[in-house]
Amino acid sequence: MAVTDPRPEEPPVAKRRAPRRRPTTTEQPESVGNDWRAWPVYEAADLGFRNYWYPVQWAEQVSRKPVPIQLLGERIVLVREGDEIYALHDRCPHRGVPLSLGRRQYEGTISCPYHGWTYRLDSGKMCAALTDGPESPINNRVKVATYPVAQRLGLVWVYVGDGDPPPVERDIPDELVDNEFVMGGRWEIREGNWRFAAENGFDEGHAKYLHNTALWRLFKVMPAWNKTRIVEQDGWLVRVQDEVHWEADFPGLGKWTNRRWWKRMPLPDAPGKGKGTVNPVIRDLNLPGFVSIRLPGLLRVAYPQFIHYEWYVPVNESQVRYVQIMVRFETGAKAMAFKAKYLAAIRWLFHGQFTAQDAWMVDVMNAPPEKLYRPDLSLTAWRRHIEQANPEVQIDRTPHAT
Amino acid sequence: MAVTDPRPEEPPVAKRRAPRRRPTTTEQPESVGNDWRAWPVYEAADLGFRNYWYPVQWAEQVSRKPVPIQLLGERIVLVREGDEIYALHDRCPHRGVPLSLGRRQYEGTISCPYHGWTYRLDSGKMCAALTDGPESPINNRVKVATYPVAQRLGLVWVYVGDGDPPPVERDIPDELVDNEFVMGGRWEIREGNWRFAAENGFDEGHAKYLHNTALWRLFKVMPAWNKTRIVEQDGWLVRVQDEVHWEADFPGLGKWTNRRWWKRMPLPDAPGKGKGTVNPVIRDLNLPGFVSIRLPGLLRVAYPQFIHYEWYVPVNESQVRYVQIMVRFETGAKAMAFKAKYLAAIRWLFHGQFTAQDAWMVDVMNAPPEKLYRPDLSLTAWRRHIEQANPEVQIDRTPHAT
Amino acid sequence: MAVTDPRPEEPPVAKRRAPRRRPTTTEQPESVGNDWRAWPVYEAADLGFRNYWYPVQWAEQVSRKPVPIQLLGERIVLVREGDEIYALHDRCPHRGVPLSLGRRQYEGTISCPYHGWTYRLDSGKMCAALTDGPESPINNRVKVATYPVAQRLGLVWVYVGDGDPPPVERDIPDELVDNEFVMGGRWEIREGNWRFAAENGFDEGHAKYLHNTALWRLFKVMPAWNKTRIVEQDGWLVRVQDEVHWEADFPGLGKWTNRRWWKRMPLPDAPGKGKGTVNPVIRDLNLPGFVSIRLPGLLRVAYPQFIHYEWYVPVNESQVRYVQIMVRFETGAKAMAFKAKYLAAIRWLFHGQFTAQDAWMVDVMNAPPEKLYRPDLSLTAWRRHIEQANPEVQIDRTPHAT
Repeated sequence: MAVTDPRPEEPPVAKRRAPRRRPTTTEQPESVGNDWRAWPVYEAADLGFRNYWYPVQWAEQVSRKPVPIQLLGERIVLVREGDEIYALHDRCPHRGVPLSLGRRQYEGTISCPYHGWTYRLDSGKMCAALTDGPESPINNRVKVATYPVAQRLGLVWVYVGDGDPPPVERDIPDELVDNEFVMGGRWEIREGNWRFAAENGFDEGHAKYLHNTALWRLFKVMPAWNKTRIVEQDGWLVRVQDEVHWEADFPGLGKWTNRRWWKRMPLPDAPGKGKGTVNPVIRDLNLPGFVSIRLPGLLRVAYPQFIHYEWYVPVNESQVRYVQIMVRFETGAKAMAFKAKYLAAIRWLFHGQFTAQDAWMVDVMNAPPEKLYRPDLSLTAWRRHIEQANPEVQIDRTPHAT
Repeated sequence: MAVTDPRPEEPPVAKRRAPRRRPTTTEQPESVGNDWRAWPVYEAADLGFRNYWYPVQWAEQVSRKPVPIQLLGERIVLVREGDEIYALHDRCPHRGVPLSLGRRQYEGTISCPYHGWTYRLDSGKMCAALTDGPESPINNRVKVATYPVAQRLGLVWVYVGDGDPPPVERDIPDELVDNEFVMGGRWEIREGNWRFAAENGFDEGHAKYLHNTALWRLFKVMPAWNKTRIVEQDGWLVRVQDEVHWEADFPGLGKWTNRRWWKRMPLPDAPGKGKGTVNPVIRDLNLPGFVSIRLPGLLRVAYPQFIHYEWYVPVNESQVRYVQIMVRFETGAKAMAFKAKYLAAIRWLFHGQFTAQDAWMVDVMNAPPEKLYRPDLSLTAWRRHIEQANPEVQIDRTPHAT
Repeated sequence: MAVTDPRPEEPPVAKRRAPRRRPTTTEQPESVGNDWRAWPVYEAADLGFRNYWYPVQWAEQVSRKPVPIQLLGERIVLVREGDEIYALHDRCPHRGVPLSLGRRQYEGTISCPYHGWTYRLDSGKMCAALTDGPESPINNRVKVATYPVAQRLGLVWVYVGDGDPPPVERDIPDELVDNEFVMGGRWEIREGNWRFAAENGFDEGHAKYLHNTALWRLFKVMPAWNKTRIVEQDGWLVRVQDEVHWEADFPGLGKWTNRRWWKRMPLPDAPGKGKGTVNPVIRDLNLPGFVSIRLPGLLRVAYPQFIHYEWYVPVNESQVRYVQIMVRFETGAKAMAFKAKYLAAIRWLFHGQFTAQDAWMVDVMNAPPEKLYRPDLSLTAWRRHIEQANPEVQIDRTPHAT
């Protein structure tokens, strides 16, 4: 028996619409109930949003051998032919066998292992039912859906949507398109819906408590609590900290602080604000706060010298592909040094143990119902942002052969 | 495909009510069909009965580290602070993270691991959302449900019910409240609904067949068959054996007996009846039979020198917490000797292999439908007893924060 | 999220009925949509067909110790008493405990492990409730269903149906009833519905592609593609190959052939046709093609010197008991040599690796929807054959005690 709380009655329509009209900056999260009916687009988006490019794999992980993946609930097979990577719906329309179990019989094609139906990688067209001869009436009359694929940042990007896709650059942060940089990264499949992962990323409140045991923060103080506001800038929502408190006294309980004698105070929260050296590319971003998020589920954490990005790529309702990269806008020796630092430390401390704490929470989180508090205005701003953008929800819409 | 038998049509109301009006003592089980609709309260009670105290754990197993349990389908966290043990609903109302994953940040509290919402153990009141500072508007405005807890017999008892609980002694057999004794025991989670476990315990028929291979009975004869009647005494149902047969001849099959040359005949079935020495406390119970049962699911098997108790504590619909203790009403050397005997033998033979045979049956049992026979009057008396007592059923009623 | 395709609207009735009236021999599969509604009997038959004998086990595998099996979704216990094997519904009607967990207390009976209810193996009649004495009113008043059992070909055959069963020989190929032969075989439980296994067996198209990597075909060429027609003969559907092509050229792709320099051309496809030596029994079958199928799910593959048979015995909706034997109609030294060859090679190469490739496809196949091609006329002939025979579908119809 799962412990479940009953949902309250449907709130009146006026109340439900209200959050959308509120100004962008609020001091309190809009909690109009303890469920998600105030955010109907968001509530429906358990499989994610269509019409976006999603990173799914390192390009070098895809070879001639087919790689099956799941993306927004759809089963897709990736295959490489030379420099190109192709993505097809991973189901032979003949008898429903996954094409990812198939063979690479002829150049530029993939053949179903069962009867040798052979599909062109570029068009998805079935050009030969090998076991029925060249005059088979079905040749060229069956098609599997294909997906636009791009390779950027060493990653394979797949577009799930209708019609001609936009350039993949639309869905990659500008600073990664326009500048030279060095990067490290990792990805993995994690338990939990992608929305919990995204909310956890933009969540103002949790780091100060959940992560105060992380090795990544061993020598850096984290705040005790902040006063925060969310602003929109260039399509990103940015968390702006108006007040940062390093210590608090709770009557009857005691002191609450992350200060320890061995911890240094961190640099200012917005990378452009402080006095320390800031990388020029990052300074030019002019960010009012160091954490920002944007559709379809990309978080950016800008430090003075490097930026961490993480994508919450929906696998299905209960799993998320968590893709994280750390970028430094440098070349030459500095870039080499950063790459070494990434492999020796960042990969294990930040992209490993630190974000594994997040993965743990995303896995055990069980909401709604929920009861929000002041820092959760970050969550409700994100949900409201989605309602306003009104992106097209993916509702188990499997592409068919035509 | 599970093998399922269709249920018969609903019996007419008159027939359904009839069993409740029958006299307490019957010679046949009341089988009014092959389902449980004659016992509607019982049929609904797959999660057990509210408004009772249940033993759930050895008190010494609960330390400052939170212990998650499930009881009547509810998720509960147990924590110790000094001599006190507290029980809270195991879900932070903020985002649904189990409090049992939390930290013990301040004396007398538990903090959710995610955002540091801190709850008083005694009241369940959230006294500090650590990551939102001392003036957070939500402080003291959220509560998780708490459960009354008692410690008796070395066990932690939890009350699931509404309003002020009765004294825990109401739900502990009087003889364990009023006398000195020594005891041993063990508990475990077993597969199967708690009602099957309870019925198996009070079942008149099975021991003679199922347990005739048990080591516990290696040197003691068990009857071949009995004539039995059920009487109520002090809130307990007692199985009274009017006839005990040690041997039977089945025409065409052969002899049926548990007698073997190496087995001794047991003492009389009712501990007060025979000539052998009987412990004075047990004699004073004046029991007309050696097996008795009572609400909410407690079995007592009284031997001349010791008593075995077992509780069938509902975990959820498909698991039962099986708590068994063996008690001897002695002090000093006799008590020491019994304790040694318990650890050396009883714990393994009786509380181990013998009741593991019961666990096996409870696990594979698949009823209704069922077809009852004469000894099953013990089961139907128990079900009728419950209909008459009409206790309040637990129907997935999760307590909420207020 | 499973990838599912929506089913098209119900086709008009005229269109749905049409396939049944088509002549037996067609050049194209009748694909009237991408679901199975054109074959309603077949679509309903996920648990198989009643009123047939099914092989379920090697006779020597059944001893006095009860063996639980599942057949057409029903739970059945097999037990041996001397030379006889009995099959009973594997559920004690008392409290639903499987009889297969029971003991063999008396000759010719099986006793439920829980309360010793003792059933006669031949009639299923409960002759003694041991724990209620010889005068128990329930003795001889309870019955569990029994199933007709036969032993043939070293296999245990069980009949699931109503009324008197036909002779088991009705469901065994005549040539195995009327002749002497030597055989080897194996059986196993495989994943996937029995219909996928049967369709895979009779499928004209797949072998040339799926099995062209099988060791069994290492030294034998397989065709590139065929023109096929299905004819009915003595209750069997036979695949007749009107054209066999050993090579094909697919424009833009290349050559497609299974020819290799180390492979020999096989003997003609119909065992009676060619010039090579053909075993007289097999020649007398007068088969127009080497693969044939019949109800309730038996495939025959006739080679010039031996015949392979495989039964697709429904276990439940998602598993099939796959029973395969290889038969040579010889005695004496030739028989001995064949037996040795079976154990040394055929068992591992053909009944092992070769048919394991089929098992793999049956497991991953996910249809309907489906899109059929020319060779699939073998599948639609089989489905139409079933619609015309209109056998009685097994719909989770569990026998009850009476």
